[in-house]
This record gives sequence, C-alpha cells and structure tokens, in this order.
Amino acid sequence: MSDAISSLSHLDCPKCAAVQPADAIAHLCSCGSPLLARYDLARAGATLTRDALSTRAWDLWRYAELLPIRDPVRNAVKLGETVTPIVPLANVGKTVGIAMLSVKDEGTLPTGSFKARGAAVGLSRARELGVTQFAMPTNGNAGGAWAAYGRRAGMRAHLVMPKGAPLIHRHECAAVGATLTFVDGVLADAGARCAQIVRDTGIYDASTLREPYRIEGKKTLGFEIAEQGGWRVPDVILYPTGGGVGMIGIAKALHELIEIGLIADRLPRMVAVQSAGCAPIVRAFEAGARESKFWNDAKTVAYGITVPKALGDFLVLNAVYESGGCAIAVEDDEIVQTRKRVAESEGMILCLEGAATIAAAAQLRASGWIRDGERVLAINTASGLKGDLTASAP
Amino acid sequence: MSDAISSLSHLDCPKCAAVQPADAIAHLCSCGSPLLARYDLARAGATLTRDALSTRAWDLWRYAELLPIRDPVRNAVKLGETVTPIVPLANVGKTVGIAMLSVKDEGTLPTGSFKARGAAVGLSRARELGVTQFAMPTNGNAGGAWAAYGRRAGMRAHLVMPKGAPLIHRHECAAVGATLTFVDGVLADAGARCAQIVRDTGIYDASTLREPYRIEGKKTLGFEIAEQGGWRVPDVILYPTGGGVGMIGIAKALHELIEIGLIADRLPRMVAVQSAGCAPIVRAFEAGARESKFWNDAKTVAYGITVPKALGDFLVLNAVYESGGCAIAVEDDEIVQTRKRVAESEGMILCLEGAATIAAAAQLRASGWIRDGERVLAINTASGLKGDLTASAP
Repeated sequence: MSDAISSLSHLDCPKCAAVQPADAIAHLCSCGSPLLARYDLARAGATLTRDALSTRAWDLWRYAELLPIRDPVRNAVKLGETVTPIVPLANVGKTVGIAMLSVKDEGTLPTGSFKARGAAVGLSRARELGVTQFAMPTNGNAGGAWAAYGRRAGMRAHLVMPKGAPLIHRHECAAVGATLTFVDGVLADAGARCAQIVRDTGIYDASTLREPYRIEGKKTLGFEIAEQGGWRVPDVILYPTGGGVGMIGIAKALHELIEIGLIADRLPRMVAVQSAGCAPIVRAFEAGARESKFWNDAKTVAYGITVPKALGDFLVLNAVYESGGCAIAVEDDEIVQTRKRVAESEGMILCLEGAATIAAAAQLRASGWIRDGERVLAINTASGLKGDLTASAP
Repeated sequence: MSDAISSLSHLDCPKCAAVQPADAIAHLCSCGSPLLARYDLARAGATLTRDALSTRAWDLWRYAELLPIRDPVRNAVKLGETVTPIVPLANVGKTVGIAMLSVKDEGTLPTGSFKARGAAVGLSRARELGVTQFAMPTNGNAGGAWAAYGRRAGMRAHLVMPKGAPLIHRHECAAVGATLTFVDGVLADAGARCAQIVRDTGIYDASTLREPYRIEGKKTLGFEIAEQGGWRVPDVILYPTGGGVGMIGIAKALHELIEIGLIADRLPRMVAVQSAGCAPIVRAFEAGARESKFWNDAKTVAYGITVPKALGDFLVLNAVYESGGCAIAVEDDEIVQTRKRVAESEGMILCLEGAATIAAAAQLRASGWIRDGERVLAINTASGLKGDLTASAP
C-alpha cells in the first residue's frame, strides 16, 4: 500500500463556501456550519483503482487516498475495522415484497456499532494533528467507540452522558478508563455541559460534526457499499437518522467515487428513517424545507436516533433531495415488532434503529415508492445484543 | 468460486480408526469417540491456492475445498462471517515482555462469538443432510449462535440451558424463536436432559463434538490465522479451553494446510488455557496423561471454559503434545485484573476467557517458556460486551 497516500487538500464550508487549510486543528466554520474535508480527486483516482484495491487488506483503511490521515503507519488508530458484511433478508423481503432486501451489519465492528468508523478515522486524524485529549457528549454507542479508540490512541477521553443512558454504555466507557461526567436531562443537556468543558479547558471538541473528520470515517460505509456491490450502488439505501452523519458520509463517499470514475453518475435514493417520536428531518422533508426545526419532547425506544435538531440537518436533507430520496417516520411499536419479526424469520437480531429501517422499507414498498425489483439496502447501525432484549425473555 | 468444491471424502475415528461414509448423518463412533471429517487433500490443494484465494470473498467460506458443504449455494447458512481481525496488543506486550503479542478478535463475528463458526458450518452441513431440527445443551454463546443460525437455516432449535445461565444468552436465544428448556444445575445437567430429549424424539443431536461438522467450522480459525500471517504461523497460540473444539480445529486446519503445502511443516506451540477453578486439561497435561479426568466442583468467572470433562480432551492434549505446547491454569482474580489492564491500556474489552489467555501469556513469558522475540497470538473468543461489565461501573 506504499502508493496509497491521502489526497486530502483542504477543508471547505458547505454553507458559505469558505476555505480553510487542512493541516491545522479545525472545528466549525465561522458561519456556524460543519466543515468538510476535500481531496485532490484526480490524484486519488490515479492510485485508488479496482486493481489496487484487490491487493489491499479488507478493512476501512483500504480507501486511504480518500481518508484524511497523511501518515497511517504512525497515526492510524486500529481495533480491527473489517469491512462489514451485507446480509440478505430473503424471508422478510418476500413478506414485504422486496425480493432484493439486504442489511449492512455494522454490529460486527469493534465496540459493536458503526460509531467505530467515525472514532477510528476521527481520532487518527486528531492524533496526527497533535490532540492528546478530547471531550464529547454521548448517549450510547458513540461514547463506547470514542472511549475505546481514544484509549487506543493514548488519549484522555472526557465523556458527558445523561444519567439515564443505558448502563452498558456507562460500563463500556468506564472499562477503558474514560473520564465520565453525568448530567441530569437528555443528550442536549450533556452537549451543553460538554461545550462548557471545552470552553473552560480548551480540550479538543469531538462532538458530532464539530470537527471535520468523524464524517470521513462514516464515509467508508459508502465506499464499502459501492465496492461490495461490484461498483454498482443499490437503488435505495435506508439509514436510521439521528445526527445523520452516516447518511452525509455515504452521499459524500458516492460523490467522490463518481468523481474518480469508480461508479456511474447515479446516487441511490437515500431514505432518512426516523422515529415518529423524534422526526425533525421528516417534518422538514414534508415541508420541502432545507433545514429542520428543533423537535420538542423527543422520545423513542430507538435511543440512537433521538436527536431533536441535528447540526448537519441541511446536509442530510440535501442528500435526500439530490438523490430523489425521502424521509419517513415509523412508530415505536412498529420498530419493536419489526425487530421481532426479523429475528424470528432471519435469525438476525437488529438494533432498534436498524429495525426502523426495515419497517420503513415495508411501508415504502406498500405505498409503491419502492418499486418492484429494486435493490434495497438498509443499515443496521449496531449489534442488537448491545440493546435491551428483555422483551424477548422467555 | 466455481472451482471451489468440497473435497470431503469420509469420516474417521481418531481413536479406533474406524471409517464411515460422509454423506449420511453421523454422530459418535461406535467406540464413543467423536468422528472427524476427512478430505481428498490432493484434490483440495489443486484449487485452494494463494492465487485462487486472492479473488475470493473475505469470509470463512473462502476455504470451501476444506469445508464439508457440497453445495454451498443451496445450503450455506450465512449471517456475515467475515474473517476476524488480528489486533496487536503493543502496550500489554511491552509490559509483559512479548513484543509481538496479538489477539484474534472473534467478538466481531455474528452473534458476537467464535461459536458462529461452528454453527455456520455445522448447520449448513446438517441442512445439506436433511436435518430440520436439532437439540443441544448450552450455557451461553453456543446457544446464541446455534439458535440464530438454526433460525436462519429454517430449523427448529431445542436448547437446554441451566437456569443460572447469563440472561443475555436466554434473551438472544428467545429472540430468534428457539425452544428453550431450563434445568436446575450446571451444563452437565443440561447435557443429560438434552440426551434424554434426543433419545425420546430422535431429534438431531448437535451437542459439542457429537456431530462431526462443528469442528469443521472452528477449523476456519486456523485457516485464517495462517493466511493472515502471510502463510507463516505464529510461534505460540493461546486458546481458552473448555470443550476445546477451537483448539482441535486450529490444529486440524494447520495439518491440512501443511499437507497441501500452503504452510511449512511446523505447528505453533499450542497452549490450552484454563481457569484454576476448572482445569482438567492442565491436570492431565501435568501428569503426562492422554485424557483428562472429571473436575469436581468446577467454578470460574470465565463461564465459557467451565467444562469439567471434555469429550474431545484427548484431541486437545494431542494438539498440545505434538506441537510442543503446554496447558496452564490462571486464577479468576488474575483473569479479571487482566481484562481490566487490557481495556485500560489497549482500549479493547476482552471476554473473560480471552483475558485468561493474556494472563497465561504473561505467566509463560515470565517463566521463560515463551522466549524473547516470539510471535504470540491469543484467541479472544467473544465480545467483552456480551459479558458482565458491572465491575467497571463508575
């Protein structure tokens, strides 16, 4: 892989088009928007070829040209980020009328969730830029991943968590020696406390989209989907949308692959799936808006998508609009029932967020939005075994 | 992969050398020993080459010639069995004086443990032979894996479990619709009840080593270790040993690879790691015995290796002896402390059984049994997140 060198060129703002240098620590644009990493795509495309990929290790680092780490040998923080499998759901697909329904199972990543992608790449780049400690608010899987990769990077992790966060996440963060602060309230309250810590101490702020590299990790989800499909993308991708970084990442990845000619110039229709108890993106989509509004009293069994107002909402909506996709909400009951149905008919225990995407696929097929014969891929963002399975208890 | 055809030829008995045909349902040999699957290795070697492997999917099915499924397209039961990563433990390695210490992380398999290997291959072959339901006793991860793969195969799974088995395993089995029977007592009592069910109903007995194909799945662990090492095996492999099927499988795999010329004729020194609270193999090894004796009052925090007398004990001991390996017991306290140390210094939460192997490596290095500069690989058999992490609670 000696020819696989990052082609990172600069950062830019998707809102006001301001440009910043890439090789210094950066957070939000002065206009308040997240910044995005940009690459010299001509240079990347010269070495990131199908042939070159055929000899590289089967992990997310194989797309090195389009990752931001300049010296992976020294700085890559690794815990075993193997390309995640795509598993057909033939029985469920038959029931709902989608013959080619599959799920990409992110639960097989280290720490049991897709958050490993953002943590691996985000912290590798942070280490490269000299960061030695960071702070972030978390409700769950992100905390577990960033705590583990943070420890792996030799950094000190400061995590701020609502007191009500699921115990397993407290435990996994504590086990790797993260510093935990508990707050009353919900994730937004944890975010406020985290912002205070960052202001008071100057610690690196690793909150969602407040640094530009977490999304570069999530982007590998898109690279993998394209490559695993033989450089042909699905017709529809369903993504459980909280902060939406994975959705933004998939769209960004596919644009980059189109640009370097690895896939055709056609995006899958991107579907943002939310819970009816917290559906700001869906409400914005239905109004044809470019941004979402804060969702009051957000509450759903699908913890991971309880985000009342995402910093990157406009990027999620943009991915939906430009791809001819949609946003759809599903009821909590339907999420729980779908998880049960998938487990009992496929032998696969999805996380609740993943189950929401299957419930959404069924609705979209019933309404005709998903057409006969289309290839549909749902993202299962975490291992179902990290969630509460007591409802299944005998 | 059209040229990748199983070269399964027959079954034989490692104890009395009796031979049986492979294409009928088989359980133990009439002498009471487990049966082993045998292959036409010349035929396998003709197509299972480095070149051929370079174009195959990065999952355990890539070794099709040396797996027992004749028609994988029709019969393979898959949930996404990607080749598991090997993760260096540089910090721990430095502390204990083993510069090249790594762990193969089986927690990234579907259902979160190495049991997925045995279930995937064992149930694929069972399906191929016409099996529609099976019974087995389980204390944990095996149940979760066989229940999930059983459901995936469209089979009915009858699992017999001690009432005291960890709740997560009850839940994961129940979630995929397995039929659960609870018994008072320990795994041996569950085994007795399972045997009764098998006798009464004629259901396929899927208990450890009572059918010949679970071990063929575990064998892929050995294939992967060899291939991931560039067809050079480690100097030492440490395996947490309960039933020992993984150890037997690794040794069998390496013998087959030697036979077809993919690796040199040298086994890694195989180390059977047990808990001091249940160490029948260690006791047998120390006595130079070929078989173990039942261990009374077995008790250890490392649930997965609480097996007082393994059906395949003589095969485990044989692998230890023929490779110049050893068997070693570690105290529960040391297991728990080691897990903590690895988590805090590497960001990786091992299962307790995996932690036992690292504790054993440290002891063997301190005693000089592991020599300076040796390449040492430990097997982490399951995700630490499936275990009880409350000891880490803040």
